[in-house]
Amino acid sequence: MSDYALNPTEFKALRWSLGLNEDLTAQLLKVSTNELNAWETGSQPIPPLAQKQLLDIDDIIEMQVLNTCDGIEAMFKKEPKRRLAFVVYPSQALYTQYNPEFINLLPLAELYTTAAWRIKKECKLVLEVDISLVPLDVEAYKAYREQSGMGESRENRAKWAASQLA
Amino acid sequence: MSDYALNPTEFKALRWSLGLNEDLTAQLLKVSTNELNAWETGSQPIPPLAQKQLLDIDDIIEMQVLNTCDGIEAMFKKEPKRRLAFVVYPSQALYTQYNPEFINLLPLAELYTTAAWRIKKECKLVLEVDISLVPLDVEAYKAYREQSGMGESRENRAKWAASQLA
Repeated sequence: MSDYALNPTEFKALRWSLGLNEDLTAQLLKVSTNELNAWETGSQPIPPLAQKQLLDIDDIIEMQVLNTCDGIEAMFKKEPKRRLAFVVYPSQALYTQYNPEFINLLPLAELYTTAAWRIKKECKLVLEVDISLVPLDVEAYKAYREQSGMGESRENRAKWAASQLA
Repeated sequence: MSDYALNPTEFKALRWSLGLNEDLTAQLLKVSTNELNAWETGSQPIPPLAQKQLLDIDDIIEMQVLNTCDGIEAMFKKEPKRRLAFVVYPSQALYTQYNPEFINLLPLAELYTTAAWRIKKECKLVLEVDISLVPLDVEAYKAYREQSGMGESRENRAKWAASQLA
């Protein structure tokens, strides 16, 4: 999708499909919302780099959806479950704190949530597996870890999230 | 996807994935933005009907993407082209005027654009066909029709859009 230029309508539709509002997009692309508006109304050309940044993020999400669904499929072959939980992050600060290794790929908590939503949707459609998105509740997660003597890790976050399902 | 309830995080992610901001969603679901906020922060339960409305729209878009891509694939087998145009509507008024038959399914111009974007993306990925989204320019379209003695129809809108490609 990155071999030709997006027109203003397409650029805006791409932004929408990533779940990004104007403020977040301006922040992500390090421009003002006025400049973003000028691109989307066609009064200024959209810099190729800005197009590439959004298209790259779309590719990364697509890849992440595919990889994660493959992983979940493999897991289900070994150990069938009916319900899974996926941790998402209710604020940028929490997302950054808990995912330092990930922040270069999907810099905004909203983009991570968009990816998680697509994973949920794809798993339901293809694998018929229900995944719940559970926003991290730091206090509840700490209490859970203390009770079970667990350290902090991605796996334990997932365990905590699964414990939150009814 | 409609056999279980969405939690607030999932509802918000679904709204994002449809490219809908709070104002448009409130308008679509005929509630205030305050009420929508109460649902998305978990302070009020999300009415099943509201969940169903958004999930149904997602299904309609999915179906439209599949059907349209199938149609384009069939068309390309008969008559290969490299580039296609898809008309989108820059305002709700124009969308409503030109698509009265469609407005019950996807009531907002933004939803139509979201569907068009997904069609563009899917066709590129699966068929390796480039589709441009061309916003309807009423004056230019009228001039084009007058010049060629054409009436107004979906097909002629598509022809006009194709004539706009470089």
